[in-house]
Amino acid sequence: MIQFFAPDLLSSATLPPDESAHCIRVLRHREGDIIQVIDGSGVLYQCRIVDADPRHTMVEIVDSADAPKFWKPTITIGVAPTKNMDRMEWMTEKCVELGVDKIVPLLCAHSERKVLKEERLRKIAISAMKQSLKTVLPQIEPLTGFAEFIARHRNKSDELKFIGYCDKSYPLRNLIAEYKAPEDVVIIIGPEGDFSPDEVSMAVNAGFIPVTFGKSRLRTETAALSALQIVHILNQEYEIS
Amino acid sequence: MIQFFAPDLLSSATLPPDESAHCIRVLRHREGDIIQVIDGSGVLYQCRIVDADPRHTMVEIVDSADAPKFWKPTITIGVAPTKNMDRMEWMTEKCVELGVDKIVPLLCAHSERKVLKEERLRKIAISAMKQSLKTVLPQIEPLTGFAEFIARHRNKSDELKFIGYCDKSYPLRNLIAEYKAPEDVVIIIGPEGDFSPDEVSMAVNAGFIPVTFGKSRLRTETAALSALQIVHILNQEYEIS
Repeated sequence: MIQFFAPDLLSSATLPPDESAHCIRVLRHREGDIIQVIDGSGVLYQCRIVDADPRHTMVEIVDSADAPKFWKPTITIGVAPTKNMDRMEWMTEKCVELGVDKIVPLLCAHSERKVLKEERLRKIAISAMKQSLKTVLPQIEPLTGFAEFIARHRNKSDELKFIGYCDKSYPLRNLIAEYKAPEDVVIIIGPEGDFSPDEVSMAVNAGFIPVTFGKSRLRTETAALSALQIVHILNQEYEIS
Repeated sequence: MIQFFAPDLLSSATLPPDESAHCIRVLRHREGDIIQVIDGSGVLYQCRIVDADPRHTMVEIVDSADAPKFWKPTITIGVAPTKNMDRMEWMTEKCVELGVDKIVPLLCAHSERKVLKEERLRKIAISAMKQSLKTVLPQIEPLTGFAEFIARHRNKSDELKFIGYCDKSYPLRNLIAEYKAPEDVVIIIGPEGDFSPDEVSMAVNAGFIPVTFGKSRLRTETAALSALQIVHILNQEYEIS
């Protein structure tokens, strides 16, 4: 099954150039064919091709159905971009596959990477959303200072907040014990050099619970994925259904 | 902390050429320095450099300590190599980071990749073992036919066996309900085209429990990592400690 992504479907009734080319040139769709289109808002549209233009494929919506994300809480991952950009791109793809609402690249004291091409990550998020048959496009935010991010989430009572920290005195069961699905979740993961002690205390003072994700020394991108996976498992376990 | 890998440490008392170069040329270690060396057998050695040769660094063992893996069961992942080799290499790195005992590339009916350079995967496993501070080198087996792999594990009563399958009628809680840590675990993950119905029934007849890892359509390498992560979480949860 293939989903085409047209963020402006409702206003333009056309597929973007790259999606048009894929639909008409690669997949050889023709006028009259029914295709599935998403605009990233949680709706799955059945569309009929009315003009098989390989640059601006025009469609008409023949049916639509709400296709909400399968998890209840809003899951936000704040993560310091890795020095190696491939690892950050890979992490973005995998987080979207598993299911995430927002990825916020964090600028931390020990960050080795201080600039970031968010646009590239957004492209990867779109492609992963399509491939994993999701209909809601996760937000990829611009690089954000650690203090600013913490201030945003300080003592929000409706959020459960965790800070991934290499100190083994904070075992994973801290998270499992504290977690009550489907509370909104915010997880922050540090850079290769981990969070600074100041950053950890800033986060803890703002209500973040320190936790070590597993017993291995994990790379930044692996820790982010592990944390996300754990939240989904806890959700699936505790889900009311 | 850095661990040098010398598979023949006990017989040769030297580091391999690449590890020697890294130790002497890159890290500038000198005669008399104490370094940490592993041979992949679950022991962490403290060694003194006796000859700082950048190709054949000679060491003497001054101390050694057992450093067993942190999980109890033997975890085997049989997975159909992805068409894109980068994804297979990435999966190998991440599985080793999270902790796995054996990775068996499977040749399946729908496999798009029918040849594999295991040596490359072994190099990645070594590097991930070092980076994640593990001391036991996971086995990377040669590409194995699906039927042969199933026959090896048929009705082994001391193993809990799962087959990752896209059919949503086998929810994740099948695995969570059946799992009794620290039983040995065998998980098989299919290729891009999933397992064939014949392969699924062959596995089920051999005692494999079908399970869908999460509610997303996951890529092969993501499904393998998710399954592994779930087993570790269940272990950590149920661990007697």
